[in-house]
Amino acid sequence: MPVRALHHVGVAVADLDEAVERYARLLGARVEATERVEEQGVQAAGLLVGEGRVELLAPLEPDTPVGRFLERRGPGMHHLAYAVDDVVAELARLREDGAQLIDETPRTGLYGRVAFIHHEALFGVLTELVEIGGTA
Amino acid sequence: MPVRALHHVGVAVADLDEAVERYARLLGARVEATERVEEQGVQAAGLLVGEGRVELLAPLEPDTPVGRFLERRGPGMHHLAYAVDDVVAELARLREDGAQLIDETPRTGLYGRVAFIHHEALFGVLTELVEIGGTA
Repeated sequence: MPVRALHHVGVAVADLDEAVERYARLLGARVEATERVEEQGVQAAGLLVGEGRVELLAPLEPDTPVGRFLERRGPGMHHLAYAVDDVVAELARLREDGAQLIDETPRTGLYGRVAFIHHEALFGVLTELVEIGGTA
Repeated sequence: MPVRALHHVGVAVADLDEAVERYARLLGARVEATERVEEQGVQAAGLLVGEGRVELLAPLEPDTPVGRFLERRGPGMHHLAYAVDDVVAELARLREDGAQLIDETPRTGLYGRVAFIHHEALFGVLTELVEIGGTA
């Protein structure tokens, strides 16, 4: 099966602490993981909302992908991530199908081995594949 | 528990058939349900992507909420839906918390009893609650 499930939804916000507090209060979200990813210019907070996951992303600087996203569109959904068994195999399959990829090989994200597919391939949705192996 | 899980992600598209075909080809998505919702001016296709759900929404006319969304922002993620046990109870709780609601009472959507929370309440994310009762 190419995709196992939704893994998380990434949401761009300006103020991470304020957003974490609001998601906790309104939706009962709990922080599962936090990480500062210098390479991508973001501070990320992985939330559990029930059994679902929301990844809040705040830019470290305005001139970063998430900073420019906020400047252009304001806060909101930034990407959609699916759980897959094998990121490398999925990238190969998608490349063969002619899908426009951002990552030709996996990178390491908040949730381990991941790769991004260009938003043009999936109707404006920046799409991330998260490798969950046989563990999820 | 206020929220049980992610239920689906709504994606606005111009051409529903093209999007269904692409999501099937690239992500192995299968159509679970389709509905024409005159009141909201959309044709909706509920997809299963593995165990996850994506709801593709195409406007019936340009002058509809999804039509205006496409005009303003192009195709992309439109709303994020969470599964809850009891929509009425969650609306009451959110109202008490001062969250800005779109629906004061539930409406009927592609997935049954639902209600929308204003995007301002959750950092730019138009949020839907889907009542799954004890069945999901």
